[in-house]
Amino acid sequence: MTANPLREKAERLRALHAGPRILVLCNVWDAASARIVEEVGFPALATTSAGIANSLGYADGQRISRTEMAEAVARITRAVAVPVTADMEAGYGPTPESAAETARAAIAAGAVGMNLEDALEERNFIDINLQCDRVRAAREAGEQAGVPLVINARTDVYLAGIGSPAEQFAEAIRRANAYREAGADCLFLPGATDAAVIARLVREVNGPINILAGPPTPPVGELERMGVRRVSMGSGPMRATMALMQRIARELAESGAYTSFTRGAISYAEANRLFSGRDVEP
Amino acid sequence: MTANPLREKAERLRALHAGPRILVLCNVWDAASARIVEEVGFPALATTSAGIANSLGYADGQRISRTEMAEAVARITRAVAVPVTADMEAGYGPTPESAAETARAAIAAGAVGMNLEDALEERNFIDINLQCDRVRAAREAGEQAGVPLVINARTDVYLAGIGSPAEQFAEAIRRANAYREAGADCLFLPGATDAAVIARLVREVNGPINILAGPPTPPVGELERMGVRRVSMGSGPMRATMALMQRIARELAESGAYTSFTRGAISYAEANRLFSGRDVEP
Repeated sequence: MTANPLREKAERLRALHAGPRILVLCNVWDAASARIVEEVGFPALATTSAGIANSLGYADGQRISRTEMAEAVARITRAVAVPVTADMEAGYGPTPESAAETARAAIAAGAVGMNLEDALEERNFIDINLQCDRVRAAREAGEQAGVPLVINARTDVYLAGIGSPAEQFAEAIRRANAYREAGADCLFLPGATDAAVIARLVREVNGPINILAGPPTPPVGELERMGVRRVSMGSGPMRATMALMQRIARELAESGAYTSFTRGAISYAEANRLFSGRDVEP
Repeated sequence: MTANPLREKAERLRALHAGPRILVLCNVWDAASARIVEEVGFPALATTSAGIANSLGYADGQRISRTEMAEAVARITRAVAVPVTADMEAGYGPTPESAAETARAAIAAGAVGMNLEDALEERNFIDINLQCDRVRAAREAGEQAGVPLVINARTDVYLAGIGSPAEQFAEAIRRANAYREAGADCLFLPGATDAAVIARLVREVNGPINILAGPPTPPVGELERMGVRRVSMGSGPMRATMALMQRIARELAESGAYTSFTRGAISYAEANRLFSGRDVEP
């Protein structure tokens, strides 16, 4: 009997949420960014839905199809050996079956983890009980495929910013703990950036939490000391490279110099070496 | 009778080779880099085969298939309104028919210009008469499709570096002028970086020439004054962004700070604005 090779990768990714070290995810959007982050030594990779959408010509927010997103994830998983968790937005549909279908697509693309959001568009939240059914459906789809998919259940409560800080906190806890009860492995709370709030979330969420990094967020070491188990960068790295491209194009247009794209660039040989011998890998 | 909308774009791209201003191409590899360069105000875009290959998980040099390359080009042309010229390497095959098939694939992908190289691998040059047949075949395929494809015939003589400088110059001129005679619109001589050599190429090539920019190459304004009609950046901008991703990942791994990916990054809203209303565009 041949074991599904993704099973071991899923367990490896799950174990990285058990502490004491925090899991740091430097989100990637294509095979090049994925290989670079892998080579720096990160033990797992996460995709950014916004970065993938932009690279393929879409705005973020499920404007891309499930199929096109899964194809992008597959190009990334084919390029690397480490476990990959895929940002599959809100699962490309409102039902438990759409969440299950998205879990199957993520696994078929070679991912062993998946984000599942609880708002279809900004501030359009999915009923908490329905979202729990969706978490269960995604988990069961993984089990049926022989892959214990690591589910990162995201609540958009802090991004939506509805109500007072106390109301937001209460709703975030209510949703996170319900998703945990339904089988989520990790609870993702983007928009929670204040150290005191994060410390309370660590105490009151009954499972590992994922914080989104950004200028106002405590640095990685501080999050780790607070007990946060996972920190991700979202589309930040992709947007930084887009800004560099803007500076390169502006320099060319304005002064005709080549400094911005040659200073510190990796060589042509080094770029290609990242992909040597990778043509035929599954 | 409806004119092929690509016909006008092809003529617009061709006219940009007529001087007196030099055509500056800040090469792109995905829809995001394409939209950024378009927004900065460039009148045309060129793709980089190495950048596209790396972003999809391949080393450069025709390891990617013609189909996958054309799909990447199509994602770029769908995202922008300006004319796009596609780096289609050596045409994915050694025959005139393979060059014609590649021209048809480029046009089907929405491109109105195409690079065609004369070496299948490094230093494995295609016979000059066969390459002339291939240039003619690509041009005829465009005419049959109703698109006067702008053919940028590339000779790898300077990249290969075989023989003395005088021999390289003679062979470069011989090939460039033969390709021009066969119908090429522009002659691309990557590896020619010395100002004196470039000045002689301008005088002795019977058509517009394309120089590849890099640290040793004269800046855009100087190339323009010398009579160079087109300058492109190759995979330089993509490799600069790969290097930024490396710095971002290293900073996260080493210090846990977020400076490299937040300083100067474009906002999430700005990134998505680049693609607003572009979902259904052909």
